[in-house]
Amino acid sequence: MPRLELIPTGEFTRVASAGLDADGRLALLSDMCRANALVAVKRAGSGHLGSTFSSLDVVAHLLWEELNVAELGFDSPDRDVFFSSKGHDVPGLYAALNALGVVSTERLLRLRRLGGVDGHPDVGVPGIEANSGSLGMGISKARGIAWAKRHLGRGGRVVVMTGDGELQEGQNWEALQAAAHQRVGRLLVVVDRNELQSDKATEEILALESLEAKLVAFGCRVVSCDGHDHGVLRDAFRTLWREDDGTPGVLIARTIKGKGVSFMEHPAALAAGGGTYRWHAGAPDDATFAAAAAELRDRIDGRIAELGLDPLALEVAPPLEDDRGTSLQGEPESGAGAPAPKPAATRREAAEYVAAAYGEALIELARREPRLVVLDADLASDCRVRAFELTEPHRFVENGIAEQDMVSMAAGMARHGLVPVVNSFASFLASRANEQIYNQASERTKVVYAMHYAGLIPAGPGKSHQSLRDASLMAAIPGVTVVHPCNGEETRALVEWAVLHADESVAIRLAIGPSPRRIELPEGYAPAEGIGVTLREGADAMLVSYGPVMLHEALTAAELLGERGIEAAVVAMPWLDRVDPDWLAATFTGVREVLVVEDHAPVGALGDTLRRAFAALPEPPALQVAGVEGWPACGTPVEALRHHALDGASLAERVALAVPGRAGT
Amino acid sequence: MPRLELIPTGEFTRVASAGLDADGRLALLSDMCRANALVAVKRAGSGHLGSTFSSLDVVAHLLWEELNVAELGFDSPDRDVFFSSKGHDVPGLYAALNALGVVSTERLLRLRRLGGVDGHPDVGVPGIEANSGSLGMGISKARGIAWAKRHLGRGGRVVVMTGDGELQEGQNWEALQAAAHQRVGRLLVVVDRNELQSDKATEEILALESLEAKLVAFGCRVVSCDGHDHGVLRDAFRTLWREDDGTPGVLIARTIKGKGVSFMEHPAALAAGGGTYRWHAGAPDDATFAAAAAELRDRIDGRIAELGLDPLALEVAPPLEDDRGTSLQGEPESGAGAPAPKPAATRREAAEYVAAAYGEALIELARREPRLVVLDADLASDCRVRAFELTEPHRFVENGIAEQDMVSMAAGMARHGLVPVVNSFASFLASRANEQIYNQASERTKVVYAMHYAGLIPAGPGKSHQSLRDASLMAAIPGVTVVHPCNGEETRALVEWAVLHADESVAIRLAIGPSPRRIELPEGYAPAEGIGVTLREGADAMLVSYGPVMLHEALTAAELLGERGIEAAVVAMPWLDRVDPDWLAATFTGVREVLVVEDHAPVGALGDTLRRAFAALPEPPALQVAGVEGWPACGTPVEALRHHALDGASLAERVALAVPGRAGT
Repeated sequence: MPRLELIPTGEFTRVASAGLDADGRLALLSDMCRANALVAVKRAGSGHLGSTFSSLDVVAHLLWEELNVAELGFDSPDRDVFFSSKGHDVPGLYAALNALGVVSTERLLRLRRLGGVDGHPDVGVPGIEANSGSLGMGISKARGIAWAKRHLGRGGRVVVMTGDGELQEGQNWEALQAAAHQRVGRLLVVVDRNELQSDKATEEILALESLEAKLVAFGCRVVSCDGHDHGVLRDAFRTLWREDDGTPGVLIARTIKGKGVSFMEHPAALAAGGGTYRWHAGAPDDATFAAAAAELRDRIDGRIAELGLDPLALEVAPPLEDDRGTSLQGEPESGAGAPAPKPAATRREAAEYVAAAYGEALIELARREPRLVVLDADLASDCRVRAFELTEPHRFVENGIAEQDMVSMAAGMARHGLVPVVNSFASFLASRANEQIYNQASERTKVVYAMHYAGLIPAGPGKSHQSLRDASLMAAIPGVTVVHPCNGEETRALVEWAVLHADESVAIRLAIGPSPRRIELPEGYAPAEGIGVTLREGADAMLVSYGPVMLHEALTAAELLGERGIEAAVVAMPWLDRVDPDWLAATFTGVREVLVVEDHAPVGALGDTLRRAFAALPEPPALQVAGVEGWPACGTPVEALRHHALDGASLAERVALAVPGRAGT
Repeated sequence: MPRLELIPTGEFTRVASAGLDADGRLALLSDMCRANALVAVKRAGSGHLGSTFSSLDVVAHLLWEELNVAELGFDSPDRDVFFSSKGHDVPGLYAALNALGVVSTERLLRLRRLGGVDGHPDVGVPGIEANSGSLGMGISKARGIAWAKRHLGRGGRVVVMTGDGELQEGQNWEALQAAAHQRVGRLLVVVDRNELQSDKATEEILALESLEAKLVAFGCRVVSCDGHDHGVLRDAFRTLWREDDGTPGVLIARTIKGKGVSFMEHPAALAAGGGTYRWHAGAPDDATFAAAAAELRDRIDGRIAELGLDPLALEVAPPLEDDRGTSLQGEPESGAGAPAPKPAATRREAAEYVAAAYGEALIELARREPRLVVLDADLASDCRVRAFELTEPHRFVENGIAEQDMVSMAAGMARHGLVPVVNSFASFLASRANEQIYNQASERTKVVYAMHYAGLIPAGPGKSHQSLRDASLMAAIPGVTVVHPCNGEETRALVEWAVLHADESVAIRLAIGPSPRRIELPEGYAPAEGIGVTLREGADAMLVSYGPVMLHEALTAAELLGERGIEAAVVAMPWLDRVDPDWLAATFTGVREVLVVEDHAPVGALGDTLRRAFAALPEPPALQVAGVEGWPACGTPVEALRHHALDGASLAERVALAVPGRAGT
């Protein structure tokens, strides 16, 4: 980690109160926020710089000029409310809130760490008005807030920022339509129109233009302006508030993704990335960070000098007390934010990505199954289907950020002879498109749901992204099988089974990050429905788990227990809702203590499945379930696993306590 | 049941092949379909006549003139595909498919009966191209079908019909946007623009106009025309196909809800209903049926005579073999389709609607809790909140058919000091808005989710409406409590607890139909968190259930077992995911056999909760779960309960088999 220098709160106060022209001051404050957001993201090892930078002028304009929160405080019921619906731009907001003294520097410097500030907005952080991170909910929420303010006779206005790609989510149009009809008033939407979404240009993924015509047709009052020019922003806000007739005002802020750091700016950065914008998510490596920080610093210092102010005094960020959780931070492997493994236990040479195996398997299967088609909702890179798109462009469908539409489109394809494989993050796919999945399954067709980013880790992006409910969301849909492979080999085999052999729909949970270890499966092992596989023998207890993250912890637990003379078996069970009765009897007969380790909430997944199945055993083992209780922790993998007592050491302790006569060993 | 006369298939063939002018022939065929659809709905005891009639000219036009299916058959991969996204207009489509010989008369006459044709479209019925019933998925599906046709080099075009109110669902705009971008081609949307939705006028619930401007802004080619004039329909289709440039064509068919029966036609019918349109759902009573049938018959006969054709020969529908399931069919209590109770066991004088108690409780609570507000998604009548709207108009928010928007709006309100109570059918609310509920709960605020139409019964509308997954959909959301009251008194108490006392969000499952019996609770009983109540003592076994429908069956089972000398206790447990440990120990200690009777799938509800809790008991009882396995059956309550072995007699049999030494009694 290079030396990280932060602009302290006091320096923001000095600049904000200096007798400067308002526009110049706001531009300077915006850049100062950019500099601090860059430091926070670098320190976190992940974060979304592109849209943090595109939105920062608007955020600074709102907080330092437009809104009354700096004056009234965030506890006042009469305060103006601002939040970002896209949420991943929150490092900029944190930087601004820190500059205003609302978020402490200590917390800012713990971005994406336990006890710090979440990777996506959470109302537990001062100044954060709404939880977001899954797209498309903000306008509805903002309308609810405006309605409450009116109903309760409170002062204050509501401003919600959305992304432009985000507008592909249908809920936005539900919300705007209702806002126009209900005429709640005092409601403004700012669209951060930076023209890029996760993977590519909005107009390439799913064209929005003419966005203005769409918004006007939906009853909005629309003003477009340069989202980096504080003079025109001021005029735009003034116009929209002045003409408030109850209908929603929309400011289309034309912005530049990556604004403020030349090599992150669109369109140059898109061209440099060969058509992929590299700064949507993930922290820059040390050299890139240094270049970006220097560029921002030079401009800031130059303005300070121009304005005749004393040079800025910076403070050096103290080292993190535990940096182990961020060792992979320079690798922009994933737009989900460069998932960091558990480095203490990681053997880097063996690191594999099950999702990469998934992507390769699809390409291979395309040759064997001509009916195979792949659908995506603007996460093609993260979901490892970009290679499929390039290899099989005519069998790839990009649906934009619209999971419901994607699932129902797949349903139509499946009814007419195709085998669609649908991709998104598990938290969005299983949840937002749940009714569409149910409807598809009810037609008795087959769709394969690739549910990426399943489970607790990476834990930096926070609870909007960590998917710990998806198995339970599929559990009661007749005919749907849920599997969770543990390594590349098992991933390939299960994808093949799902595409070529399964009769009905299959949901495949996939870890998005690098595997903390390569889970070794017995030679000749091939997955068979409802049948798990013993990875390690042991007579004293049995740990049952699935997926690379929790099987690693289970194996670590068994290793630790072995050191204490307790022999714990470890069983990998990739079938979360199917149990073969013969395998069950063979595996669990004579076993006294079973601990199921869920990469899921403790309800609705493998533990419940086994508990039901155990009823068939004459002498069922005692069964405990270790899962993610409550809201998933945001932090490094180590922090999150420890917090939920799902790390190997905690699991070992739990098993030791359950094994009779061994608790004291 | 009055005498029901059907126009036989042969008569349709005769008219269709007569040398008439095309427009007159299509108008006549449409009316003939109306007459048969009316008979089917009357016989079923429920169904949606209003939009069946508004859409029927378009349906007949498509099937007899526009599409190639009559020629190629429904098995041809090159066929044109037509389906209705709203789905509840399916009686008209069934009538047309019957007229074409695709659906047998026997099946048509078993509308909403087991082995007949489902209350909402299901691909198991010949000629039905897609499952629908939950709104907003059709355009996405149609695009998927068109894509598959193009990809596979197949012939045929795709026409999907939507309602107008249905367009409030955001998925439609996702789908249109993608259709415009992807330019799949051969895709047409027909909007049945009858200007009424479930409860009121679209423009009152949530204005759509200018619908044309919205569609054009989203990249559609739009033609509007009279949806009952076959000449202009022909021209409109011709124009849209001729100008197909890959973008979706949209035909806004201006129709009249209830078209063809004067007193069902909008706007006269809306005025006659005092602002509520009475013919959205539910079958007419005998006199009204007779009047409607006569009016249709007169017009048909007149046209037949004018055209110089021989009079129509009608056939009389044979009586249903078991009419018990439809005894309440004349009561348009619910837009969900006049839910019919189990009449064999019904004591009519004691019939109560728990949902009615719910609606009354809200009005009472409004006086005690000024922060209470009520939100609706166009089901105010069914959800029994119309009275609240009239009593507390400033605390009622109508959001139209947009469950996601409604939930996130409630989230915003809750963050700013209100206590929102959100209403929809459980199948839509828990499923479609699942991610929004998760997001709201993650803000640690309280929203009360009134999940109406929970459970298997009424079973006529079919699997899109029967909600057997909602508890499992909420199970893994931290902090959310799921309850299911069994009678009016318990409903009031639980609503009061949820609104006034609960710390976090609560989902209240509510039966929509009349209770088959009034469940009698012990005097002085008041619900307390995690604590059930014993309704009947019995030493041999214990049935545990919740809600009026399944507790009635459990009690019936216990009564039947008593006749056989087996004493079965019955416990009402309204807390589906909370168990008080003291109550658990007191209730289940010494019990050997427990049968949980779920008004839910066998996973994710009370059975799983108790199984987990039983781990704390030193000698847990044997636990079986009776729930709705597989896809919920469509039929009368008796049929559906028997099909799933959830009727009292089947449950009694299951308990008898489990009780040692008593199986032979």
